[in-house]
Amino acid sequence: MDHDLDLHADGPALTAALVDVPSVSGEEGPLADAIERALRRLPHLAVTRRGNTLVARTGLGNPGLGNTGLGRKERVVLAGHIDTVPHAGNFPSQWDAERLRLTGVGTSDMKAGVAVQLRLAATLPEPNRDVTYVFYECEEVDVARNGLFLLSRDAPELLSADFAVLLEPSGGVVEGGCQGTLRAAITATGARAHTARSWMGKNAIHDAAAILDILRGWEARRPVVDGLEFHEGLNAVAISGGVAGNVVPDECVVTVNYRFAPDRSAAEAESYIRELFAAWPVEILDCAPGAKPGLTAGPAAAFVKAVGGEPRAKLGWTDVARFAELGIPAVNYGPGISEIAHTPGEYVDAAPIVAAEQALRTWLTK
Amino acid sequence: MDHDLDLHADGPALTAALVDVPSVSGEEGPLADAIERALRRLPHLAVTRRGNTLVARTGLGNPGLGNTGLGRKERVVLAGHIDTVPHAGNFPSQWDAERLRLTGVGTSDMKAGVAVQLRLAATLPEPNRDVTYVFYECEEVDVARNGLFLLSRDAPELLSADFAVLLEPSGGVVEGGCQGTLRAAITATGARAHTARSWMGKNAIHDAAAILDILRGWEARRPVVDGLEFHEGLNAVAISGGVAGNVVPDECVVTVNYRFAPDRSAAEAESYIRELFAAWPVEILDCAPGAKPGLTAGPAAAFVKAVGGEPRAKLGWTDVARFAELGIPAVNYGPGISEIAHTPGEYVDAAPIVAAEQALRTWLTK
Repeated sequence: MDHDLDLHADGPALTAALVDVPSVSGEEGPLADAIERALRRLPHLAVTRRGNTLVARTGLGNPGLGNTGLGRKERVVLAGHIDTVPHAGNFPSQWDAERLRLTGVGTSDMKAGVAVQLRLAATLPEPNRDVTYVFYECEEVDVARNGLFLLSRDAPELLSADFAVLLEPSGGVVEGGCQGTLRAAITATGARAHTARSWMGKNAIHDAAAILDILRGWEARRPVVDGLEFHEGLNAVAISGGVAGNVVPDECVVTVNYRFAPDRSAAEAESYIRELFAAWPVEILDCAPGAKPGLTAGPAAAFVKAVGGEPRAKLGWTDVARFAELGIPAVNYGPGISEIAHTPGEYVDAAPIVAAEQALRTWLTK
Repeated sequence: MDHDLDLHADGPALTAALVDVPSVSGEEGPLADAIERALRRLPHLAVTRRGNTLVARTGLGNPGLGNTGLGRKERVVLAGHIDTVPHAGNFPSQWDAERLRLTGVGTSDMKAGVAVQLRLAATLPEPNRDVTYVFYECEEVDVARNGLFLLSRDAPELLSADFAVLLEPSGGVVEGGCQGTLRAAITATGARAHTARSWMGKNAIHDAAAILDILRGWEARRPVVDGLEFHEGLNAVAISGGVAGNVVPDECVVTVNYRFAPDRSAAEAESYIRELFAAWPVEILDCAPGAKPGLTAGPAAAFVKAVGGEPRAKLGWTDVARFAELGIPAVNYGPGISEIAHTPGEYVDAAPIVAAEQALRTWLTK
C-alpha cells in the first residue's frame, strides 16, 4: 500500500500520519517511500536515497558534491531517524483531543521530530542557511545497520556541514554533547571441584563478589564540560557463571557498562576501567566516544541563542557523537520526551511539536 | 555385536572386558545383554530384567516375591551401576603391565566394582547370606532415569534386604552414610533503567553481591554422626542476570548447592537455607536427604568387622540414600578411586580389585 504524506498538515497531524506507517527497524521501506515521494515534489530540494535513508539538500543540481546549494555562508544538517522499536500494543496512534496528546510507538522517539523536519523542508524554499535534511534508518538497532553511520562511512560528502541538529526527543531543550559508552567483560577465575568436596576447588562466582563490591562502592563523576554538567554511570549489565548443579564453577564473567563524560576520550575510559579492575582480566567489548557540547562558540552558540532556553548535557549516547567524529558540532533538540521513549505509554504533546517547529523556523529565517 | 563375558577371568581382566563394552548412560543395552547372558548361565541365580537393569537373586523359583532364596537368616544386596560418563579420549581400556594398572572410562567408576559383583555371583553358589545382585542403568544422569530409583519405585520387593553394599569407588574403604544435597535459587530484584541514567534504577546484580558475601563468609559444619565426621559445603553453582547491554538489570538469580550432613533432615536443610538468605525470595529447586552411617549395629557392623579397615563418612550423595529411604542400611565399598572418576586419566589398580573381592568373599562365606 502506498502512503501519501501531506506536508502541509499541521505538525501533530503529520506526526500521526508518520506514526501510522509502521517502520520498526529493518522495515522502514514503506515509510521511506512515502517520505521520498513527498520530498521529490519539492522543487527546491535535491534528493538522494541510499537504502532506506534519504538526504534532501537545498539548492538544485547534482545532489552530490556538485551541489553548491543556495550559496549561503553556512550549511546545517537537520537529522532524524525514521525507525521505531517494536510495537508494544501501541500501534496505530491515538489522538486525545482533550489533552491534545498523541499516543503510540515512535511518537516521541522520534516521528514528532521527523514531522518538524518535513514541515520545514516543505515550507522553507529559501532559508537563511543551506540545509541538509537527513531521514535515516535503523537507529534503534546494531550500529552496523545505522543509516547515519553508513552515510558517514560511505558518502560523508552528503553530510558536509558547519553544524547539525538531531531532532531526538529532548523535551524542547537543547541538549549538548553526549556521554561515551564502553562495555567490558571482567572475568573471575577459580578451579572446578565436585560440590561434595568443594574445598578442593575455588569458587569463581564467590570471587566475583569482589568485582561487584567495586561497582557497589563506585562514586559517579559529575564533571562540568563546556558549561554543562554530565553524570557518569558504571553498572553491571550482565553476570554469568556456572558449570553444573554439582560443580564448583571455575569462571564467572561480569559485563559492565561505563557511561563516561566527554572530558574523557575512549582511550582514557578504557585505561580507567582496566585500572579499576586491575585484579582481573578485562576484555573491552565495545567503546563509543562521547562528544563535548561545544555550545560556547560558532554556529552552535548562534543556534542556542535563536531557539532560547537553558541547554543541558545529554547523558545518553546519541548520533551527535557521529557528527563530532566528522568534525561537525551537533546538538539534540526535539519535541519528544526521552524518558518515555520505548515504553508502551509513549506519547507526545501537540504544543512542543508546534513550538520546536517555530523555534527552528525562526533560526532558519531571521 | 554380541559380547561374551568370561566370569571366571580374574577381576582386572573382567574389568577390562566390561570397560571395553561402551555403556555411556542411555546406551547400556549391549552391556546389559552381555551381563544378562552371563548371569542366566548360572543355575543358582534367578534373573529379572527391567529396561537395562538386571536383578539376580540367590535361590531358584519365582524371581519375584515367591523367591525365598536359600533360606538364610539375612539377605544382602550388592549393587552397582553399569553406565559411565561420556568418553574423553579414554576408550577402550589400556593395561599397564608394569604398574598393574587399567586406564579408561569407567574403570574406577565403577566397572571394577561390577567385575567384583559378577565374580562373586559366578563363584558363590551357596553364600552364608542370601544375596541380591543389582546391575543398574543411568546412574550418571537425571534421577528420573536412574535404574535403582525406578526399581525402588516400581518393584521395591526386588530390593528387599537387611543390608546393602554399593560397590561405588571408595578406595577399598567402607564409606558410611552420605550427605544430602539441596539446590535453591535466590533472587535479588531491582528496577530497570537506561544505563545512561542508572540512578533512576536499582541494579539487581550489584545487590546480589550481598548474597555472595554470605557464601564467602560461610563456615562449614563438620558434625560427627554415628562416629564418622562429615564435612558440609555451600556453594554458588550458577549466577545469571542481565537484560541488555544498556539496561540496569532488575533481576539476578544465584543458584546455590548445599551439601548437608545426615544429622539434618531435608526439611531442616531447607529451613536453614531459607533463614540464611531470609532477605531474598528463596526457591528450593530440589533436595535429596542424606543417610546416617548406622555402622554401629546389626548387619552393617558385621560387614565392617568382616572387611576390616577404618570406615569414613561419604561426603557425596550416592544411591546409599535410596536404600536408606527403603529402610535398608547401606554402605559404599568398592575398589575404585572416587577422586579420579569422570577425569580423562581415570584408572584402577589390579590389587584393590582383588582385595575387595577377597574381603567380600570372606564376609559371604565365613
